[in-house]
Amino acid sequence: MARALLIVDHGSRVALANESVGAVASLVSAQGEYDIVIGAHMELAAPDIAEALSDAVGRGAVDVTVVPFMLAPGRHATEDIPRLVADAASQHAGVTWRVTAPLGVHHLLGQLVLERAREAQAPTKER
Amino acid sequence: MARALLIVDHGSRVALANESVGAVASLVSAQGEYDIVIGAHMELAAPDIAEALSDAVGRGAVDVTVVPFMLAPGRHATEDIPRLVADAASQHAGVTWRVTAPLGVHHLLGQLVLERAREAQAPTKER
Repeated sequence: MARALLIVDHGSRVALANESVGAVASLVSAQGEYDIVIGAHMELAAPDIAEALSDAVGRGAVDVTVVPFMLAPGRHATEDIPRLVADAASQHAGVTWRVTAPLGVHHLLGQLVLERAREAQAPTKER
Repeated sequence: MARALLIVDHGSRVALANESVGAVASLVSAQGEYDIVIGAHMELAAPDIAEALSDAVGRGAVDVTVVPFMLAPGRHATEDIPRLVADAASQHAGVTWRVTAPLGVHHLLGQLVLERAREAQAPTKER
């Protein structure tokens, strides 16, 4: 009865840009709240949503939560990702899934903005 | 000797997408760490970087910190925004400025992902 968390960004042709979601997946995985945590991409890079979902199900996931790794509530987060997840999930019987709100506006983002600003003031810290 | 913080996203033709950075600016402003906090857009929407910087200087800012409101360390965060800020700042003598790292990978983003996932599990909470 494993629970999986998929964190899905847009995906980019730039390799470095595709690394962020995997790095955040590692941070989230370390929290231990989900059995399986996978970073994936809506398009342009692997794994895509269908591949990540197959991977999760292959590792025993029966309950999958998908978080759009996007700041603004645009069409990708509210339409494209839910549609792609629904399509992918239709290939796997008995899997429950949901797509959450995107990162959106949240006090944790405000904290992170201030954190980046503080780092840039401190001349001894790496930017 | 006012200190200003500019939070700069990409900018979009979709009005709703442009609201996020202003909403985060309000959250950051409420923390009281900066005298002036302005949400701005790299392109496609107002205020742009030059307008926001003029606004800040007009309100007494002599020290301006610019945070790229972007998840991945792409060209916008590392090249375009610093160039636009340098161009805009060249019109205002005596203003010190710096551009920080983008939001990037940070444990606060991991926390926010888990927060969005928790909200989506709870049937009584608005998604």
